[in-house]
Amino acid sequence: MNAPTVSERTVVFVSDGTGITAETLGHSVLAQFESIRFRQIRIPFIDSEVKAISARQKIDDIASYDGRKPIVFSTLVNTNINSVVKQANGVFMDLFLTFVEPLEAELGVKSTHRIGRSHTISNNDQYKNRIEAINYALTHDDGQTDKDLAGADVILVGVSRSGKTPTSLYLAMQYGVKAANYPLIPEDFERGRLPAALPPYKAKLFGLSISPERLCEIRNERRPGSVYASLENCKKEVKAAEMMMRREGVAWLSSTSKSIEEISTTILQQLDLGQAIY
Amino acid sequence: MNAPTVSERTVVFVSDGTGITAETLGHSVLAQFESIRFRQIRIPFIDSEVKAISARQKIDDIASYDGRKPIVFSTLVNTNINSVVKQANGVFMDLFLTFVEPLEAELGVKSTHRIGRSHTISNNDQYKNRIEAINYALTHDDGQTDKDLAGADVILVGVSRSGKTPTSLYLAMQYGVKAANYPLIPEDFERGRLPAALPPYKAKLFGLSISPERLCEIRNERRPGSVYASLENCKKEVKAAEMMMRREGVAWLSSTSKSIEEISTTILQQLDLGQAIY
Repeated sequence: MNAPTVSERTVVFVSDGTGITAETLGHSVLAQFESIRFRQIRIPFIDSEVKAISARQKIDDIASYDGRKPIVFSTLVNTNINSVVKQANGVFMDLFLTFVEPLEAELGVKSTHRIGRSHTISNNDQYKNRIEAINYALTHDDGQTDKDLAGADVILVGVSRSGKTPTSLYLAMQYGVKAANYPLIPEDFERGRLPAALPPYKAKLFGLSISPERLCEIRNERRPGSVYASLENCKKEVKAAEMMMRREGVAWLSSTSKSIEEISTTILQQLDLGQAIY
Repeated sequence: MNAPTVSERTVVFVSDGTGITAETLGHSVLAQFESIRFRQIRIPFIDSEVKAISARQKIDDIASYDGRKPIVFSTLVNTNINSVVKQANGVFMDLFLTFVEPLEAELGVKSTHRIGRSHTISNNDQYKNRIEAINYALTHDDGQTDKDLAGADVILVGVSRSGKTPTSLYLAMQYGVKAANYPLIPEDFERGRLPAALPPYKAKLFGLSISPERLCEIRNERRPGSVYASLENCKKEVKAAEMMMRREGVAWLSSTSKSIEEISTTILQQLDLGQAIY
């Protein structure tokens, strides 16, 4: 490891839990500085003063190695732990203090300062839902079973490799939303009908489409040179699938330039899912 | 929907992108106020002034319906859009402005104020890695194949239902880490050896264990009343698996009271994975 040049900077994510919150916000904020390369260090699970001292030391070591202070995104809730870590030689972005104090004033109650509240199984029901939804997505992937479709929150349809599986898993993992998914295949287009199990659940259907060119690329990684992957076949399938979705009144979007996060957010919004009370 | 009582409050997550950053930080901060129930509304994809006006209206409507200002976590990057939304009748927690301005001073460069930088496929390589890692996890789930284990970043082992599959998927989805997973089964314990494909990859192995009581619960949901799910069998398998992992020098943790986020963070730390430069 070389000491960073002018356009590099070390970023530290320090937390009493996983550090996922610090990292998520940190990435978003730092993406606004495109000319700088950030190298990231995670310091999770700092839940005691002994660990706080070692975190402080680690940050000091980085500062002296780099010859400049690292940017530190921290979500330390405990006042004592936080005050130890903050003695370190870093530029602190304190996510909790910054927002918790104004919120205490606004809400008229003191915050609990209880550590490890996020990304744990402390909210057991919500966590259980997410794990169940992951299992549901795996069991109901790719039209494997018609059982318990009544239990689905959403049923994704689309041609093979249009992004249904990763989207189903993301919906499950992040939101506890149960997503089944069914491929639309040449046999469906010939029959001119949705897969037989689906018509009773029309209100839950959501379609993914994709540009034939992108689909051809993706399929060629899997089965290079096959008819299945050919641009001609991709064009035919995509056209037939979009026609079918239009005819059946199934809402759909093109996944071509969208991330699974963007696709999932759109689905939640359109089907009015995941607007939880917590 | 009834108007909220004293201990309820509406929270709005408004963003020019998915709103995932706003939501992640919002949930963490609000988890510090356990006496209040929050109902959440997402307003994603506010990327034009027209949409900003409709977001402002939506927030105003909530305020007048509730009879009090909603808490608004916002990650609006564009100055014009942000200034329109901020006219709304809410209590604003502006995640970007709060941290971007001090960072501009610290880093000595102006931020780009470019919208939609997070949770998109704009960083195409990183996104591609994540999707590949999801496919890898699915193909290499539950010891389905011994092929391309050299490509794994980590290989999880543990008794059936100890949490390997959701952890593999989480590592893939969030970090682009390629995780294979192998069950440790009674045949392995009888032979007294790890599954045959694994010894060459010992440095990549990481074990998940679980309390027999919790395992018995989980297995009974799947196969109620089976020998497989019985407490006696769970005790036997867990003991044998832990003995094997100790003997083989495989690092492991107990997943009993840990979320997939906590397990994944621990694995990344122990195997020194995912410390990306970005």
